[in-house]
Amino acid sequence: MYRILSILVRNHAGVLSHVAGLFTRRGYNIASIAAGETADPMITRITIVTAGDEVMLEQVSKQLSKLIDVIKVEELSYEDSVSRELLLLTIFVPKEKRPEVVMLANTFGVTVADIAKETMTLEFTGNSLKINNIIKVLDNYKIKDLARTGLLALPLESSIEKKIS
Amino acid sequence: MYRILSILVRNHAGVLSHVAGLFTRRGYNIASIAAGETADPMITRITIVTAGDEVMLEQVSKQLSKLIDVIKVEELSYEDSVSRELLLLTIFVPKEKRPEVVMLANTFGVTVADIAKETMTLEFTGNSLKINNIIKVLDNYKIKDLARTGLLALPLESSIEKKIS
Repeated sequence: MYRILSILVRNHAGVLSHVAGLFTRRGYNIASIAAGETADPMITRITIVTAGDEVMLEQVSKQLSKLIDVIKVEELSYEDSVSRELLLLTIFVPKEKRPEVVMLANTFGVTVADIAKETMTLEFTGNSLKINNIIKVLDNYKIKDLARTGLLALPLESSIEKKIS
Repeated sequence: MYRILSILVRNHAGVLSHVAGLFTRRGYNIASIAAGETADPMITRITIVTAGDEVMLEQVSKQLSKLIDVIKVEELSYEDSVSRELLLLTIFVPKEKRPEVVMLANTFGVTVADIAKETMTLEFTGNSLKINNIIKVLDNYKIKDLARTGLLALPLESSIEKKIS
């Protein structure tokens, strides 16, 4: 089962490799990672998706909390979070097929970011399931380049309220 | 000056901490990192934004290429790439201010992902400049949570064609 860890760290050189290294030493793979600034440029949020059970996650969280530049470690469930991923995809599209790709893009909420002689670059934001679906829908076209960010997640406030009330 | 490195790696445990560790050992900070699957689930693309000059970047690229699970290292310039970042932002919004935020969201192409009693969670994809602008526009509202992926980038094929022809 995949789990989401949201980690606030001080933006010091080395903090990222310390965090990633902790997973490595324990033999846990990182399925995806996204790290970027927060509202405070001195603080970075690292979002990690990892496969593991509750025991493993508790251990990792504890160990992470002990690292010198780690401020906060939080587990987010898929149900109680807004989770999004960003996809950039360059596919080979012969000129005569462009209208078809534009139609597919419009239908699925995909943005066309670039059109070149033989290729189109598409951009899509959604949860992991939707991203995987988009890639399947475009399966007929040969992929030239594909990049996706790791999953990004914040607590789903409305759902948390429901549970409290 | 910020530079974008796009690194293809075999999806083995430890590869991420090796890549990040190389930056640390040389004293280079990672401004942002995004790592996720490519079309081949065994291969991950790591996109790193780092500050440095050409000499530094050449050195890092060479060192990265020597790592066992690194397949390809490519530098992307901002001008010749499609670069996007994803922002999730939860702000405190009193009920009577909701229409104002929705109006701002519509104007700037921001999606409302969640509305709760005291907060709204917003979602936006764009280049780093646009992301920073959105955060400024919403500056009147107190930020509860902010997460952004690192920058994601692919070559801008149309611009590359122009330079070749």
